[in-house]
Amino acid sequence: MKFTISKSAFIKGLNTVSRAISTKTTIPILTGLKIVATNQSLILTGSDADISIETTIKTSDPDNLLAVESEGAIVLPARFFTEIVKKLPEDTLTIEVTDNFQTVITSGSASFTINGLDANNYPHLPEIDSSNSLPVAGDVLKQIISETVVAVSNQESRPILTGVHFTMDQDNILAVATDSHRLSQRKVALKQPFENSYDFVLPGKSLAELSKMIDDSKDDILLSVTENQALFVVGDTLFYSRLLEGNYPDTSRLIPDSFDTRVSFDASALLSTVERASLLSHESRNNVIKMIIEPDEKKVTIYGNSPDVGVVQENIDPISLEGNQLEISFNPDYMKDALRSLSQTSINVDFTSALRPFTLMPTEDGESFIQLITPIRTF
Amino acid sequence: MKFTISKSAFIKGLNTVSRAISTKTTIPILTGLKIVATNQSLILTGSDADISIETTIKTSDPDNLLAVESEGAIVLPARFFTEIVKKLPEDTLTIEVTDNFQTVITSGSASFTINGLDANNYPHLPEIDSSNSLPVAGDVLKQIISETVVAVSNQESRPILTGVHFTMDQDNILAVATDSHRLSQRKVALKQPFENSYDFVLPGKSLAELSKMIDDSKDDILLSVTENQALFVVGDTLFYSRLLEGNYPDTSRLIPDSFDTRVSFDASALLSTVERASLLSHESRNNVIKMIIEPDEKKVTIYGNSPDVGVVQENIDPISLEGNQLEISFNPDYMKDALRSLSQTSINVDFTSALRPFTLMPTEDGESFIQLITPIRTF
Repeated sequence: MKFTISKSAFIKGLNTVSRAISTKTTIPILTGLKIVATNQSLILTGSDADISIETTIKTSDPDNLLAVESEGAIVLPARFFTEIVKKLPEDTLTIEVTDNFQTVITSGSASFTINGLDANNYPHLPEIDSSNSLPVAGDVLKQIISETVVAVSNQESRPILTGVHFTMDQDNILAVATDSHRLSQRKVALKQPFENSYDFVLPGKSLAELSKMIDDSKDDILLSVTENQALFVVGDTLFYSRLLEGNYPDTSRLIPDSFDTRVSFDASALLSTVERASLLSHESRNNVIKMIIEPDEKKVTIYGNSPDVGVVQENIDPISLEGNQLEISFNPDYMKDALRSLSQTSINVDFTSALRPFTLMPTEDGESFIQLITPIRTF
Repeated sequence: MKFTISKSAFIKGLNTVSRAISTKTTIPILTGLKIVATNQSLILTGSDADISIETTIKTSDPDNLLAVESEGAIVLPARFFTEIVKKLPEDTLTIEVTDNFQTVITSGSASFTINGLDANNYPHLPEIDSSNSLPVAGDVLKQIISETVVAVSNQESRPILTGVHFTMDQDNILAVATDSHRLSQRKVALKQPFENSYDFVLPGKSLAELSKMIDDSKDDILLSVTENQALFVVGDTLFYSRLLEGNYPDTSRLIPDSFDTRVSFDASALLSTVERASLLSHESRNNVIKMIIEPDEKKVTIYGNSPDVGVVQENIDPISLEGNQLEISFNPDYMKDALRSLSQTSINVDFTSALRPFTLMPTEDGESFIQLITPIRTF
């Protein structure tokens, strides 16, 4: 195997597949990255067994400055090899595999010789039929991920809750995540009806990595799902993730369909107030803040306190306020996560009682994005 | 005590004194910061017993928006108090100390009450007579620090080597640091003759913190030294550091006064080459690279290798080369530190033999800045 390539194009590809490579793997060859050179392209692969990423650098794109002199394949130590490439002196580099998987990297007057591994020992990627794939706009998928992945559980005691539950029917994508203390649900209408239906749970970690690979363009990403794998095609890159096994709990009945108290807030103003109150609650053993809603006086007050350090109280002006008087306590960090994903909009916060879950929804188009938080009993 | 102040001016002062405050102190009150309000100013103090910083915010500067309603003093938990101030909603804030050192911070509709401590229990700062102080331009002092502090030892086995040795006579400041493997020496001519002479060792950690407080202006910093303390006056801020006790070794005889081989390099080109070679040496147990100098062929080659991972070799074109053929091995990290502090200049590297220390000096004005590295025996 021997080829010459643009350093910047090669680094871009190495960075892409490196997302899937962990130094903590129990399978030694997976600390390496696989390079396959063909006459048409260079194919780079990284994997940690849960996630696999394969990207193709084509000879047909003149920016890649890719010339393959002889075909072949090799596995090289990923972290170390990437460090070398980034430090090379010239804008192009040549890689040649010699005897015993010895690999020579030359650029200008610098010449590295490193020990490679036999590419035949690298695990095969899952085979997924992508002929019947679902197109999703990149910016929409990225938004769905950012809005739901905050609510996945990081407790391995219930593995299914460490993922986001996707249900896709003819018209909609519904994504739900919950760690049993809070829940986030996003519904998006499909641009064109989809004839299949899907129901699967993707690990939150996979989605977080996938999201980093998607830019904010509206370019379609093609999604294919098998019994235990999902494949996302992002431009010249394939992103494989295993699915979580098991049945996701039925979350539809958790969301209340009525309210006794509704307060509208500017999401960013509420976020600032909750952030201040959480400064105190974080110094305390039980991380709780209290909200008191007084409809008669159109007044909302937030309290935080830590016996060792002090107390904070702050009035926040609601946009509107209707329903019953209420005093409710909750974890401010769940509220902060929810408000950050709602960002700049005005929101409705709907309560039923001090011990029942309450919801946060954008004032407009509220049905499509619901966040739910379970309060904490403090009496 | 009660005062109102601009949030941004207050945060600037808090950030300044926070540099001296450690959460790891064994003296609990030093995790706090002291605030003293007088009719003219607010004085903030932070200390970790080694370093103390005191800064003054004056009522006379209208930007500070400082109005002191009643004088007084308090000690507040530094990290937590600073976090609160940064998160306050309005551009100004009011601080009032009530009974039992309870301190109320108000800004807009937010009100924090936190537990303070009696300022009478805060340690006194050293008393230093600054009537006979030495003015040093800020940018010059910052340069001296950055050029020497890299070479201080971080081994507590010889505490004196964890500092930089300053010798000041009528005409010059001489600063030297060595960890016994490498040495860095900077000499600067004083703008005006100084009638006293100083000889003291300042901890490297103090200098690193002091350097962060100095901007790149040429404004003078006033230096005063007592038997065991140094005081630097930087604008409205006083920076105190203890001195290291003991005799600094005589370093003047370590620097060779002749050479057998001299190679001139572009410092940044040599740095890039050494960085590449160190990628390999860092993977090896003994972190060593080798330089081979062949005057007959006007050729310099650098080698790095790690038995597990591979080898690198690179030719680097010297600007000029004179003297004997030489093969020498050294720690590339010392070379990188030295080259980074030499930055963009052309340099002379002067060797005597494979086992004797060699020096790096700027081609111009070489006497004023000398870096010395001890080679490693590999045969």
